Amino acid sequence: MIEKDSIFNIQRIHDMTTEQAREKCIAQIIHANTIAKTFSSLDQQILFYKILMAFDSSFHMRFGVHQGLFGSTLRAQGTKEQWKKYEELVLNLEIIGSFAMTELGHSSFLRNCETTATFVKEEDAFVINTPSVTGTKWWIGMAGQTATHTVALCQLFIGGENQGLHWFVVPLRDRTTGLPLPGIKIGDVGEKIGRPGLDNGWIQFQNVKIPRTNMLMKYSQLDSNGTFHPAPSPALAYLPLISERIGIIECTATDVSKCITIGVRFSCVRVAGPTNRPIMDFQTHQYQLMPILATTIVLTVVSRQLSQKWETLKLPETMEEMVSSGPIFQDFHGLCSILKGWTGWWAMESMEAIRRCIGGHAYSKYNSVSSISNDFSVLTTGGGDNIVLCQQGAHYLLSNYLISKKGGASSPVCYYFKDFFSKSMDTKKGEWASIDQLLLHFKWLVKRMLEKVEAMKKAGTLDKNLTFYVESTKSFCYHYLLEAFYDEIKTANSEIQGVLYELAAFFGLYWIHSMIGRFMQFGYFSGEQAEQIESEVYRACEKLRQNAVPLVDSFNYPDWFLRAPIGVYDGNIYPPYFNLVSTAPINDSTQAIWRKHLSPLFSRSNL
Amino acid sequence: MIEKDSIFNIQRIHDMTTEQAREKCIAQIIHANTIAKTFSSLDQQILFYKILMAFDSSFHMRFGVHQGLFGSTLRAQGTKEQWKKYEELVLNLEIIGSFAMTELGHSSFLRNCETTATFVKEEDAFVINTPSVTGTKWWIGMAGQTATHTVALCQLFIGGENQGLHWFVVPLRDRTTGLPLPGIKIGDVGEKIGRPGLDNGWIQFQNVKIPRTNMLMKYSQLDSNGTFHPAPSPALAYLPLISERIGIIECTATDVSKCITIGVRFSCVRVAGPTNRPIMDFQTHQYQLMPILATTIVLTVVSRQLSQKWETLKLPETMEEMVSSGPIFQDFHGLCSILKGWTGWWAMESMEAIRRCIGGHAYSKYNSVSSISNDFSVLTTGGGDNIVLCQQGAHYLLSNYLISKKGGASSPVCYYFKDFFSKSMDTKKGEWASIDQLLLHFKWLVKRMLEKVEAMKKAGTLDKNLTFYVESTKSFCYHYLLEAFYDEIKTANSEIQGVLYELAAFFGLYWIHSMIGRFMQFGYFSGEQAEQIESEVYRACEKLRQNAVPLVDSFNYPDWFLRAPIGVYDGNIYPPYFNLVSTAPINDSTQAIWRKHLSPLFSRSNL
Ligand SMILES: Cc1cc2nc3c(=O)[nH]c(=O)nc-3n(C[C@H](O)[C@H](O)[C@H](O)COP(=O)(O)OP(=O)(O)OC[C@H]3O[C@@H](n4cnc5c(N)ncnc54)[C@H](O)[C@@H]3O)c2cc1C
Ligand SMILES: Cc1cc2nc3c(=O)[nH]c(=O)nc-3n(C[C@H](O)[C@H](O)[C@H](O)COP(=O)(O)OP(=O)(O)OC[C@H]3O[C@@H](n4cnc5c(N)ncnc54)[C@H](O)[C@@H]3O)c2cc1C
Repeated sequence: MIEKDSIFNIQRIHDMTTEQAREKCIAQIIHANTIAKTFSSLDQQILFYKILMAFDSSFHMRFGVHQGLFGSTLRAQGTKEQWKKYEELVLNLEIIGSFAMTELGHSSFLRNCETTATFVKEEDAFVINTPSVTGTKWWIGMAGQTATHTVALCQLFIGGENQGLHWFVVPLRDRTTGLPLPGIKIGDVGEKIGRPGLDNGWIQFQNVKIPRTNMLMKYSQLDSNGTFHPAPSPALAYLPLISERIGIIECTATDVSKCITIGVRFSCVRVAGPTNRPIMDFQTHQYQLMPILATTIVLTVVSRQLSQKWETLKLPETMEEMVSSGPIFQDFHGLCSILKGWTGWWAMESMEAIRRCIGGHAYSKYNSVSSISNDFSVLTTGGGDNIVLCQQGAHYLLSNYLISKKGGASSPVCYYFKDFFSKSMDTKKGEWASIDQLLLHFKWLVKRMLEKVEAMKKAGTLDKNLTFYVESTKSFCYHYLLEAFYDEIKTANSEIQGVLYELAAFFGLYWIHSMIGRFMQFGYFSGEQAEQIESEVYRACEKLRQNAVPLVDSFNYPDWFLRAPIGVYDGNIYPPYFNLVSTAPINDSTQAIWRKHLSPLFSRSNL
Repeated sequence: MIEKDSIFNIQRIHDMTTEQAREKCIAQIIHANTIAKTFSSLDQQILFYKILMAFDSSFHMRFGVHQGLFGSTLRAQGTKEQWKKYEELVLNLEIIGSFAMTELGHSSFLRNCETTATFVKEEDAFVINTPSVTGTKWWIGMAGQTATHTVALCQLFIGGENQGLHWFVVPLRDRTTGLPLPGIKIGDVGEKIGRPGLDNGWIQFQNVKIPRTNMLMKYSQLDSNGTFHPAPSPALAYLPLISERIGIIECTATDVSKCITIGVRFSCVRVAGPTNRPIMDFQTHQYQLMPILATTIVLTVVSRQLSQKWETLKLPETMEEMVSSGPIFQDFHGLCSILKGWTGWWAMESMEAIRRCIGGHAYSKYNSVSSISNDFSVLTTGGGDNIVLCQQGAHYLLSNYLISKKGGASSPVCYYFKDFFSKSMDTKKGEWASIDQLLLHFKWLVKRMLEKVEAMKKAGTLDKNLTFYVESTKSFCYHYLLEAFYDEIKTANSEIQGVLYELAAFFGLYWIHSMIGRFMQFGYFSGEQAEQIESEVYRACEKLRQNAVPLVDSFNYPDWFLRAPIGVYDGNIYPPYFNLVSTAPINDSTQAIWRKHLSPLFSRSNL
């Protein structure tokens, strides 16, 4: 259906100017909303949007901002009545929402945000203001050209006192003309390195008046007398960010799976050398691409599992529910911070490795890999900067470590920390053939790193070892992925279970090898063992190479979806590539260049 | 001068469409040629072009292709008379040249090229043909829209026999109309991920006739009787590629130095956290940026030195000269292959690290870092694929190793290999404070890796260890850089010598630490020593941070040159950034989007 729809399926997307990309993308948002309404089930709608988001990353962020961030903030932070007021408007696209948190000068450390919302009791209203250039709301998706509304994170002032950050619904543009409302200065932030169809914007507020009821009041309330009831925890303001992060982890799996499909298919067709071997036969290629393939499969499965777990959680409706379910959210927060961080970095490195493995043809936009990477790259910082998130993750692990040390009950995600303090961890350093052993090696490293972190904390030197602190979450991350994947495949159908176990074992060994320096440094593996592991990784890469094509085929991306002629399913890569290139629109401008610049130049001289 | 010139100095370069970028760039090429002629000295001309190339990477490749590749091929492969015929035409831009080596299906392994040049004795001419789609010349810079000529690498057929690859001058377009000449099918390859101002093209030849004298005949000759004298070594056809690689190494230093300037300045101004610390104070930042800064400085100095050495070499004019100077070229070839490979990979990783350190604002094209990285990225494969080059470099090291082992005279670049076989290398594993000791550690690793490579070769398992083989050149690379830099600063003025020694020592220690896994695996450094080295690297980063701003200032890039408001010299970053963004031309299209899409949408419903 999407394939046949001329608004959705634009094959020559890379030939568009930014202006064309913008127009295309908002048209798609509107069109999708119309079509989604024709579906009978919510599941169908969700699937439909998931495919569109995986297909186009500008669409993804536009939709994610409107429904995901704007919508979720209203739902999670607003009272039932507030959400009811907006629900239909959001779902039917009768307003277009945006999410105004970041400012030009302030981002990860939100507490420094400058935008103010000052309560004016006499008018039962707030006045929103941007006090300086650095306080300009910045990067706000959909605000650039299209949003009619935003939820803005502001410092709440009541009677001259700062009550911290809260969310406010602020209308931005007139719905008939699109012109900014009084007091709103707004514009588009212009050219970005990726996601050209997305209109990120900047906003400045100059005495913008909104009714008191536009403050989102599920957890904190302000009544018309000016009496303020703060939320139990200020961290609640960030609840919508957890969903966003889970979405990002899924998107990470999708984007890399698209690239690895293109990379593997190309590498199995492209030949080099005197015997015309496919370049996929070179060990350098196998060593770069096979671990990416295995990791992508693991991440695809685990991110889906994670998102299902999240969806079964109920957002707390009351203060009491909130307090009782707090730990679960903290768990999700800790886990997702670490997963988002490491898989995001891994994704960037993987897409770069795939780009290099393709060589020159990855430099063409028509083969998509570099564009996917550019579109993705914002996500190492957007949705929470990875360095900052991994620090938060490290806090989380450390505090669970300390709880476990004292014999307390750590959170379920850190269930195995208690083993660190039982008599011995039964690891067998010389064995790495079984997944169970691999899991133990990872655990050992988690423990060893946390011991060091604890010592640093005691010595007051964490600041001087921030790099190590961030790294202390890595082994935890890969352990989690392996264990969660292993759980999932235990129930897989027996035909493919063998392949999946092999894949899991390879995944584990590869990531252990990626941390081999730490293992050796701590005296866990010897140099000789490190060499053996390296050889086994090479061997496993070679073995996986035999199944590489069926495995990427199993992602099930049709050719129109990948938009990359060098990655077509049937392997007949050069003719469609040539056809796409030879009809490139830029050729239409050649004659103009000659008339204006070259013919006059050459008429001066004679050959 | 360039700053004040409206054709050269375009600040809003990132707002241009591809079409505009193309037109801008060819106009610059023409304008530069006119201006260059007004300079009295060659040195002035060279400096002028160097600045323009560093300023704009599309210009860089256009000029590089015309003068560097097209021009050098004519000069290096043509007879004196042939070069004389073209010299003025090239220098005065009376023709526009291109360099047609790569084909759609064939690249690093050029011997598989399909384009043929068949000698037709009766007509004293060649007929050039593209036998298949995969034989289409591809990526050819300037061929897309502007080149009038090319030098094409073709399989030479004489009397039905293939005499291997040779270069032929082929006219492509009519100089008056710009239309392709008979038998030439030509076009632009369209959208690329970077260098939008450069017109890469594809070419197909259909029975294109050129006179016999269009074959470049310095080293191999064909007379009108059809008697063929082959070149002493077929590798000679690739001589122009050495200059190209040296140019690329210099460009690597330039591009990273631009990015690190922006990254460091931004990080010293941007604040975060409750105490408003500059983010440059975080160790994670220091650990990412300071090694890049040190390496960039080292590379800047060493690449300049290398290029000076190359310029003093005389291209061999006769067969005898060629044979006698062969080893020197081989040396350059081996060395440059390795340097281009490792510094190219390092550059990509560094620009990515800088991008991450800047965070969201690096996603804006207006801050240049991501664009510089996209422009650069082709160079991990262009000018010789890095994996392939490092393999060639490894061959080169291995053969010098074997010569030295037999007591023979290795090439000067590998002068220290003989020490590997003298009684003992006097390394002190526990010491790493002096540059001399650091150099010894690197050497030890070169030796140890080559020993393993030799054993693999004997066992016939190099293929199964290609990754290791490629890696075996890394320690050599960083040893070379450190030693060459050290040599250079020995004569530096005493005021800055202290800083430079410290920088060199830090550079050495950092890169040793980057290979610490290998050192530990081979039992050279212990885990404890590895930990000590890590701590010292952290400390050195912190120390260098104090000088970070003066050091990046010493690259001497004026603001107009960097085109990155978040990296301005005076640190007042936000106002110019806001000004640039708030006048982004995309804002002009907002009203059209409302008229066409949004106003009609909202008129359907009422809020
Ligand atoms: C913007 C741009 C401008 C260019 N300009 C020109 C130009 O003006 N003129 C011109 O002639 N060419 C030009 N080129 C082509 C460029 O020189 C080639 O892209 C380059 O030579 C590398 O080849 P490749 O990566 O395309 O292909 P391949 O050689 O096919 O390499 C593909 C992949 O296979 C791997 N591989 C190949 N061989 C081996 C091996 N033996 N062992 C292990 N791995 C291997 C490589 O590492 C790479 O990852 C340009 C390219 C671009 C993108
Ligand atoms: C395309 C795009 C779309 C976006 N959409 C939206 C949107 O719709 N709404 C919205 O509100 N925002 C949006 N953002 C903003 C985005 O969420 C921020 O960019 C992100 O929160 C990270 O902040 P930062 O990197 O910009 O800045 P900073 O937090 O200033 O970080 C800069 C650098 O400092 C480092 N750093 C910061 N603090 C620490 C610390 N404590 N310790 C160590 N290092 C530190 C970081 O690692 C990073 O390298 C968007 C951004 C982009 C680029």
